[in-house]
Amino acid sequence: MFQINDNYEKLPGSYLFSTIGKKVASYKEAYPEKDIIRLGIGDVTLPIAPAIVEAMLKAVVEMGTEEGFHGYAPDLGYEFLRSAIVKNDFEARGCNIEVDEIFVSDGAKSDSANIQELFSTNCRIGVCDPVYPVYVDSNVMAGRTGTYNSDTGTWSKVIYMPCVMENDFIPQLPKEVPDMIYLCFPNNPTGTTIPKAELQKWVNYANEKGSVIIYDAAYEAYITEEDVAHSIYECEGARNCAIELRSFSKNAGFTGVRLGYTVVPKDLKCGDVSLNRMWARRHGTKFNGAPYIIQRAGEAVYSQVGKIQLKEQVAYYMNNAGLIKKGLQEAGYTVFGGVNAPYIWLKTPGKMTSWEFFDYLLEEKGIVGTPGAGFGPSGEGYFRLTAFGSLENTVAAINRIKQM
Amino acid sequence: MFQINDNYEKLPGSYLFSTIGKKVASYKEAYPEKDIIRLGIGDVTLPIAPAIVEAMLKAVVEMGTEEGFHGYAPDLGYEFLRSAIVKNDFEARGCNIEVDEIFVSDGAKSDSANIQELFSTNCRIGVCDPVYPVYVDSNVMAGRTGTYNSDTGTWSKVIYMPCVMENDFIPQLPKEVPDMIYLCFPNNPTGTTIPKAELQKWVNYANEKGSVIIYDAAYEAYITEEDVAHSIYECEGARNCAIELRSFSKNAGFTGVRLGYTVVPKDLKCGDVSLNRMWARRHGTKFNGAPYIIQRAGEAVYSQVGKIQLKEQVAYYMNNAGLIKKGLQEAGYTVFGGVNAPYIWLKTPGKMTSWEFFDYLLEEKGIVGTPGAGFGPSGEGYFRLTAFGSLENTVAAINRIKQM
Repeated sequence: MFQINDNYEKLPGSYLFSTIGKKVASYKEAYPEKDIIRLGIGDVTLPIAPAIVEAMLKAVVEMGTEEGFHGYAPDLGYEFLRSAIVKNDFEARGCNIEVDEIFVSDGAKSDSANIQELFSTNCRIGVCDPVYPVYVDSNVMAGRTGTYNSDTGTWSKVIYMPCVMENDFIPQLPKEVPDMIYLCFPNNPTGTTIPKAELQKWVNYANEKGSVIIYDAAYEAYITEEDVAHSIYECEGARNCAIELRSFSKNAGFTGVRLGYTVVPKDLKCGDVSLNRMWARRHGTKFNGAPYIIQRAGEAVYSQVGKIQLKEQVAYYMNNAGLIKKGLQEAGYTVFGGVNAPYIWLKTPGKMTSWEFFDYLLEEKGIVGTPGAGFGPSGEGYFRLTAFGSLENTVAAINRIKQM
Repeated sequence: MFQINDNYEKLPGSYLFSTIGKKVASYKEAYPEKDIIRLGIGDVTLPIAPAIVEAMLKAVVEMGTEEGFHGYAPDLGYEFLRSAIVKNDFEARGCNIEVDEIFVSDGAKSDSANIQELFSTNCRIGVCDPVYPVYVDSNVMAGRTGTYNSDTGTWSKVIYMPCVMENDFIPQLPKEVPDMIYLCFPNNPTGTTIPKAELQKWVNYANEKGSVIIYDAAYEAYITEEDVAHSIYECEGARNCAIELRSFSKNAGFTGVRLGYTVVPKDLKCGDVSLNRMWARRHGTKFNGAPYIIQRAGEAVYSQVGKIQLKEQVAYYMNNAGLIKKGLQEAGYTVFGGVNAPYIWLKTPGKMTSWEFFDYLLEEKGIVGTPGAGFGPSGEGYFRLTAFGSLENTVAAINRIKQM
């Protein structure tokens, strides 16, 4: 009789956002007349920018012609996209990253879940707490996390690096050394970040201890402060210890378009073994490239017009972030984030747990947010709101919250 | 110091089609004037059908509007596509498959590589030999295959089911029972298939022994004979033992569009554990849906006009298959396949190995094919040609081969 991967059985409940989706759906069924504003899942709402729509239309038409048809894409992505990435996301920031270190994918979620495959199941992971659930869940599925303690909400083999009010949401270098360190700055869910000098300490730590950093820079487009790195490769020595995950979902609204990429520098090695070659092998064997049409959309993100249009989109969402932050503060909440990220992280009032606050907000105010506890034990007592709604909905939500 | 997944180190060489790509590229560099005809990789050449182009154009325009914008797709695929799949691919054939048993993905290659994650690393796999390399390679990466013997080209823990001239390419039920059985009919690479009654034996065997069948039906659109099953769910009892992988690449030319789906019936269980729920959990955690635009393209595959246009495409390729088969036979080759599949499988002449024949065909005839040995040890002495070229190239290739 075949046996299953019993690591799956260890996962408590369902994926966070599936749980929220179900809760909201059943609430809507019970109260169909209620008007619900969704500031929960980090999904964008603005339509795809005209320059990108135009590029996709052109690519679709091409695909319908004999000369313009494109079959299987190169395993690691089209040269036109990988070059545009290198030029704009790295060269422009003084980072030394080459085209063959860029791996185009169907999105950063897939990459952030799949990247752990390159490492031994004996590796121990370190994560900020709270954290985007995919890092831990994908390692649970691979058997790297030990056993779950439902009282503490922690895994026995995971090294947690708490990010809370008390330490200004800046994780401390862990005493127990993780083999794989997941970092996400600007951070999801807290919306906070760390200065470049602080990030450099992590790079130094990883190089000293022999750890690898898996750096999720999905929100770099929202950085407004000067001293914050947009890429970990702005730090010295990062080519030897860091993999970077990048998304088109938040800077270009590609949540439903699906495109991302991962940087694996050729200097990142375990003994003689190049992780760049390993990831190339994984791509070649387990993936068949992102759609041609979508890669052309990605290219348009870097066009002159595209850049202008996307800057406006980011500004639109950051305006929302400012409104939420100000509104919540006026309503008496303690609020974080929203300066270099589209997320607002608030302290739940009184002794409310974050799921209690979720229910309160849904039932009393008709607003969907994300309970901090869903991102890890140190998220308990916090709550995430996103700035990805429409201006209209954002203003309406804030007004509802203020009417206490 | 972090450690890598050392199973990757066990993989001999690179992914088959990457190797071929490199060989052809270096030949082209040496002889830039040579006109090369590619009948190697199973990539299609006809442009995307008009009905599908139209659907994508419409979806792209929608994505650029406030009302028509689509963000994150439902984890498992849009209802409109899943319903069309159930209705056309299963109900129409009398198979009892429900919408929540369909999991839409970015392509069958990803699914066929990822599906093994649901199973224990102690499971033993059984594969036809020769076979599509992804089944074995993805299991090597997961550590299920033991050690590689480079003399025999076999893995110590893999159960091989040879498919050769001598058994009419019909695999025998293995004495040593595999936990996971990979079957692909119509077969890639041999282009042969088995009657439905023969497939029923495999379903019975799996149910009796407690094995799971991973059934790759990527080429079902090419079936011309009446007694061949298009889906394993045409067999009684398959809901209890079989997962089916389906592709849009070959029936609709989506190699560069990227769309596939996997069927995991709710009756497929290991003890109390539903594999349908496990796969749903994997999708929710490690994947973020296929692009909206591409799922609309998939829907158009099942439209009335789409069906007619795609029937013509399949007929075009099958005409090529007939020409290749006939041409090779006239040139004195022993030839298989090409009746229910777009692949022609030929016996290499004399004592030529399949890689020797690859070099011969590339250097003497300017034709790229795929050496049988690349698909497994029993593929040695065979060679694959695909019918996915243009009619013009196919005719030219046959003429070149005939000029011996």
